[in-house]
Amino acid sequence: MKAIKDSVHDHIPICELAADLLETPELQRLRHIKQLSTVRLVYPSANHTRFEHSLGVYYLAREACSLLDVEGQRAKAVRAAALLHDVGHGPYGHQTEGIIERRLGKHHDEVDDLLGEGRLADVLESHGLDPEEVAGLVAGEGKLGQLVAGELDVDRMDYLVRDAHHTGVPYGTIDHSRLLAALQFRDDRLVLSEGNVQTAEGTLVARALMNATVYRHHVSRIAGAMLERAGERLLDSTDLDATQFARMTDDRLLAALRDCEATADAARRLEHRDLHKRAAWAKLDAVPEEVVTAERERVRRFERDIAEVADVSHDDVLVDTPGEPSMPETSTRVVVDGEVRRLADESPLVEGLRAAGRAQWRLGVYAPEEKIPEVGAAAERVLGVEVE
Amino acid sequence: MKAIKDSVHDHIPICELAADLLETPELQRLRHIKQLSTVRLVYPSANHTRFEHSLGVYYLAREACSLLDVEGQRAKAVRAAALLHDVGHGPYGHQTEGIIERRLGKHHDEVDDLLGEGRLADVLESHGLDPEEVAGLVAGEGKLGQLVAGELDVDRMDYLVRDAHHTGVPYGTIDHSRLLAALQFRDDRLVLSEGNVQTAEGTLVARALMNATVYRHHVSRIAGAMLERAGERLLDSTDLDATQFARMTDDRLLAALRDCEATADAARRLEHRDLHKRAAWAKLDAVPEEVVTAERERVRRFERDIAEVADVSHDDVLVDTPGEPSMPETSTRVVVDGEVRRLADESPLVEGLRAAGRAQWRLGVYAPEEKIPEVGAAAERVLGVEVE
Amino acid sequence: MKAIKDSVHDHIPICELAADLLETPELQRLRHIKQLSTVRLVYPSANHTRFEHSLGVYYLAREACSLLDVEGQRAKAVRAAALLHDVGHGPYGHQTEGIIERRLGKHHDEVDDLLGEGRLADVLESHGLDPEEVAGLVAGEGKLGQLVAGELDVDRMDYLVRDAHHTGVPYGTIDHSRLLAALQFRDDRLVLSEGNVQTAEGTLVARALMNATVYRHHVSRIAGAMLERAGERLLDSTDLDATQFARMTDDRLLAALRDCEATADAARRLEHRDLHKRAAWAKLDAVPEEVVTAERERVRRFERDIAEVADVSHDDVLVDTPGEPSMPETSTRVVVDGEVRRLADESPLVEGLRAAGRAQWRLGVYAPEEKIPEVGAAAERVLGVEVE
Amino acid sequence: MKAIKDSVHDHIPICELAADLLETPELQRLRHIKQLSTVRLVYPSANHTRFEHSLGVYYLAREACSLLDVEGQRAKAVRAAALLHDVGHGPYGHQTEGIIERRLGKHHDEVDDLLGEGRLADVLESHGLDPEEVAGLVAGEGKLGQLVAGELDVDRMDYLVRDAHHTGVPYGTIDHSRLLAALQFRDDRLVLSEGNVQTAEGTLVARALMNATVYRHHVSRIAGAMLERAGERLLDSTDLDATQFARMTDDRLLAALRDCEATADAARRLEHRDLHKRAAWAKLDAVPEEVVTAERERVRRFERDIAEVADVSHDDVLVDTPGEPSMPETSTRVVVDGEVRRLADESPLVEGLRAAGRAQWRLGVYAPEEKIPEVGAAAERVLGVEVE
Repeated sequence: MKAIKDSVHDHIPICELAADLLETPELQRLRHIKQLSTVRLVYPSANHTRFEHSLGVYYLAREACSLLDVEGQRAKAVRAAALLHDVGHGPYGHQTEGIIERRLGKHHDEVDDLLGEGRLADVLESHGLDPEEVAGLVAGEGKLGQLVAGELDVDRMDYLVRDAHHTGVPYGTIDHSRLLAALQFRDDRLVLSEGNVQTAEGTLVARALMNATVYRHHVSRIAGAMLERAGERLLDSTDLDATQFARMTDDRLLAALRDCEATADAARRLEHRDLHKRAAWAKLDAVPEEVVTAERERVRRFERDIAEVADVSHDDVLVDTPGEPSMPETSTRVVVDGEVRRLADESPLVEGLRAAGRAQWRLGVYAPEEKIPEVGAAAERVLGVEVE
Repeated sequence: MKAIKDSVHDHIPICELAADLLETPELQRLRHIKQLSTVRLVYPSANHTRFEHSLGVYYLAREACSLLDVEGQRAKAVRAAALLHDVGHGPYGHQTEGIIERRLGKHHDEVDDLLGEGRLADVLESHGLDPEEVAGLVAGEGKLGQLVAGELDVDRMDYLVRDAHHTGVPYGTIDHSRLLAALQFRDDRLVLSEGNVQTAEGTLVARALMNATVYRHHVSRIAGAMLERAGERLLDSTDLDATQFARMTDDRLLAALRDCEATADAARRLEHRDLHKRAAWAKLDAVPEEVVTAERERVRRFERDIAEVADVSHDDVLVDTPGEPSMPETSTRVVVDGEVRRLADESPLVEGLRAAGRAQWRLGVYAPEEKIPEVGAAAERVLGVEVE
Repeated sequence: MKAIKDSVHDHIPICELAADLLETPELQRLRHIKQLSTVRLVYPSANHTRFEHSLGVYYLAREACSLLDVEGQRAKAVRAAALLHDVGHGPYGHQTEGIIERRLGKHHDEVDDLLGEGRLADVLESHGLDPEEVAGLVAGEGKLGQLVAGELDVDRMDYLVRDAHHTGVPYGTIDHSRLLAALQFRDDRLVLSEGNVQTAEGTLVARALMNATVYRHHVSRIAGAMLERAGERLLDSTDLDATQFARMTDDRLLAALRDCEATADAARRLEHRDLHKRAAWAKLDAVPEEVVTAERERVRRFERDIAEVADVSHDDVLVDTPGEPSMPETSTRVVVDGEVRRLADESPLVEGLRAAGRAQWRLGVYAPEEKIPEVGAAAERVLGVEVE
Repeated sequence: MKAIKDSVHDHIPICELAADLLETPELQRLRHIKQLSTVRLVYPSANHTRFEHSLGVYYLAREACSLLDVEGQRAKAVRAAALLHDVGHGPYGHQTEGIIERRLGKHHDEVDDLLGEGRLADVLESHGLDPEEVAGLVAGEGKLGQLVAGELDVDRMDYLVRDAHHTGVPYGTIDHSRLLAALQFRDDRLVLSEGNVQTAEGTLVARALMNATVYRHHVSRIAGAMLERAGERLLDSTDLDATQFARMTDDRLLAALRDCEATADAARRLEHRDLHKRAAWAKLDAVPEEVVTAERERVRRFERDIAEVADVSHDDVLVDTPGEPSMPETSTRVVVDGEVRRLADESPLVEGLRAAGRAQWRLGVYAPEEKIPEVGAAAERVLGVEVE
């Protein structure tokens, strides 16, 4: 059997189905989408791609199927879904998710159309697989879909460890071998076997610490906000349509931003890491409730108001109100004393982590360095926040 | 400069003071004391010793002094204390701590006498150091003592990472470089600089997860209880005195247990991992308060009572009531918004971890496998516990 | 001091000089040049950049200066040269080196002009450094230049370990801490101290094994040959000049190839890994001497002749005659029995590695998969090789 | 399935056969025999045991069987042999091999008697295995025996990587996943598949570098020579018989040496690392042929002669004439161009490594530090060597 060397899982054996899928442009495209998009502006080693991550998820799915005695065509479908689970991502992954969802009404895990046509459909069908079924698994549907997308999925097992390996931040190094070995089905529900409350807590904690240290680092958030604004501008200023946009790679998007007058400066700033800085930065309890929960349109209006008050260009003001960190791992099911229980009901850590997530929450208002004083002052007035 | 290769910190440069200290029998003795004593009966790779750990602590102390601009004789004293911080440990480290404290009234970090005489004193004095001052640092006294023994000490930074490396359990892999770089003195108090709440939380969480998964694993606790009982027997049955006992190595203690009739069977069991099993295992809320808080003498009486009710030999019953896990890291001081704060006041995680520690607490009653039914039943009656 | 997290060296402290240099577009550009260019088509985790590598080299240079007691302005100059040593690289690093050298007559380590003007010059001068002197160090000039570019330089120490970390191929994991600690100056010559013949052999062997397994993998060589051909075409078909070409990033070059009719197909093939395959592959003793030593112009003529004989387009034939692997490490100086000796004179391994390098040498002729039969046959005839 | 956490292979699933074997005193005994015996006096982290190594070999054997489609009882026999391959080792492993071979005429891989009686035989038979057949596999007999003991065995794959992990010396980190995946049977001969000359070379080189840096480090050799002398003394001075000696553990041997007057000083020296030093140290071409090839009895006579000339006690002189490093890996079979070839015929590296091994060879004469002058001078005279 062919094999591919991986920096995390070492030797990944490649079945024929995977070999065929890997030759499609849809999967090769993932070589050009970074796993952690703008995080690499903070952690310079974090240049890993969704391609190598997809291989890792494929590998873990293969192991999981083998440990759970899932075999034959069902295992093939799971392996295909694992390998393909990220083909729906737009350029810069999560950073353009909002744009794509608003314009196309579609989440990155809705891949029916991508899998149902062209070479991907051909390859899947030539191996006796139904593209629609594989797309269902990618969306987390059915018993086996839990392996691909769910609170115990192999996606998370791979990315935590891989992101730790590439950023150098150790918190993500979960015990994925133990997690895999602890997987069981109980009434078609994927659970962790007896004695694994701490295994589940370990994963939960790992993601919380990676959130705080890596995924939500303010420099990455600033670059992400700049990128999202530039992406919107690009779509508004050119005849590029949202579907084309969604199929771009990181470097094709950057090239398009460079080539469009309205976004050329943003492109230059992103390329040279000449980023906006924090004009305001405020904790949850220093921000009025209506700002925290403001819808996107409202936030856009805040930006225009702040720009007006500060007498700067609209482009010079970015308001960033992150949602509360999600903690899907809290729904992890673990067998305790013979019964299936939710981690949230079993572990006193869950509430502590939620509170820690809230304590780390910050509203950000970003502006070019030289305009920070006026933008900061205007943000305080317009948003009514107390700035740190 | 001489250097020693280490599996964790790679290349450890050895100053002349350290080279001289390393030649003393007191430090060489630590080659023969395992860092994790009975844990290796669960994690077979965990054979690392207090010798290599001491080198690691020395290395981190050196780095810390350099980053904090501690120089000259003061730095030498800190390095000496770091290298010597474990010379006071008895055989099997923490597992004989209770015996030694009860018989000698001395904790392993009280090393005035060990440092004040013989070759250690000679070496220290020949390098212009006062043994008493070094012993004070080992006990955590004074401003610089916080580096050696305190909630931000280099001891913990080394052992968490080293124990993770050798057990294969990743949770201990804290970000020790960042911790080191974040150390500051504020009014002679060792604190973490601004922006390091998560760094502190990471360490706290790491220790909590290692506690649950490694340090308090029930198999290691069983072996530890057997060892403590055998140690007491040995001292009661022979003319070995407690001071000699405290200076033994792991293998010298095992040899003494083998050679003493009263303990020969325990020695065989420990050597061949033919351990007692759990006859009772109960959660905190299933154990009467008076049992949870029982003093040692009371516990010993419980054991005799259970043995009597079960009609087995006293040796066949071990009652293990662990204290609540300590969390010294919660007193870590971190600079937040310019002010020094206690982690416990700043991080909502602390309360969650405490509760998790309580949820993991178990009373254990251990007996030879074939006597579990009668000992289990007797334990329920005598202790009034509801058994899991 | 500021610090940057690195996946290889962990925590890299950043001095003010480095912090200022890192803000220049010239250094930020290296974020967009992959360290191993086309190797990532074989080893999908190998996405690391010359930016993170440059940080690693800076870190090791800092350590080396400290160990060798190089201080003050001289150390600053070495650190600057280490950080800047790769700014002269063109897009895709070594893969466009030939094009740039032929068109500009300049090697990537000639950086006088880059350092002597614009922001780099400003930053260097503001820190009291002479750009010309720093450029000299980058080129390996003088006593301290050996640390930056020479057979014992910190460049190699970083890339071997980093390439191993990111490819997952362990062979490059040399003992860089020991190498650093063994560095000495003897009569202004950088040497390894007594007892380090094996340390030097270890590095030599590491590079030889990485050459065979990673750097010269045939798939990477094929992609490299395609890229070089496309680069030449681009320069011939557009008004892009060679200086602009040399300052591109990987993704800017790929965008330019996409936008130029003559190279659009090559761009697509590289992006989707739809590469040429081996039409001929021959060992050294199966290739006529005149082909092995043919100059570039001659090789280009071979390509045209093969295309003609095979009746295919010129674009469908690539002839790849690699030079013999260089082994600069064989000139490493080591102190043996008190005298400085060349590794080549001291180690019997050197001759074995040279011979192994020759045994691994292959001539390659590459063509699109469907044209392999005719191109292969034509290559045999035109080149007079016996094909494997 | 039960699993054991390992610091090298992470998660090792344990089949029922292995679980039963692991409970025998014969396997538990390996917890008390260090894998690298006296090497830990040089590399203080190298405290790993033959127990964890045996688990690693078991794990790799399991993987190899699965990749080679060896199934059912044959696979069980291979797994048993892998787990049991080291039960024949005496205390301190290779360091007492000579004593045991001379006195019992038996090599550590002759385990027929150990496997054929007592609990091991019971366990093997209860799983339908023939102890004699398993012992044959341990000795490398038959087609499948090559997996357990041969130039491509899983023993070497484990120990190189494990020794690297625990010493911190990276050279042993071979690509064991690739080795495993490349294994094939050709006419019942275990070979590496096409394209794996470098994989084989990598292993060969790894062992050569580990030999030079770790396994044959002079401090470990000195301690080994002291231990062998003490072992002989112990057997000559007490009524301990050689069979009992051979079944001891490291710490039981040390205890016995302490308790015997003739060896108590050696025991103290070994325990406190108060070792002899090199009184003479000479290269191959500085040592007369007759000394290099001297039989053991002759060497013992040299020692007595040197002691007499130097006027010191016989105990104060140890002569150490190591054999040439063996290179079994050179017989590795690799498929090249469709044919099976010996690595020695295929790789020019083999000759270089042999020569490097000879260049590293040293005769050693060891004595207590204070007696080095007289012993060194006497050694020069008696042995006719030119000392370095």
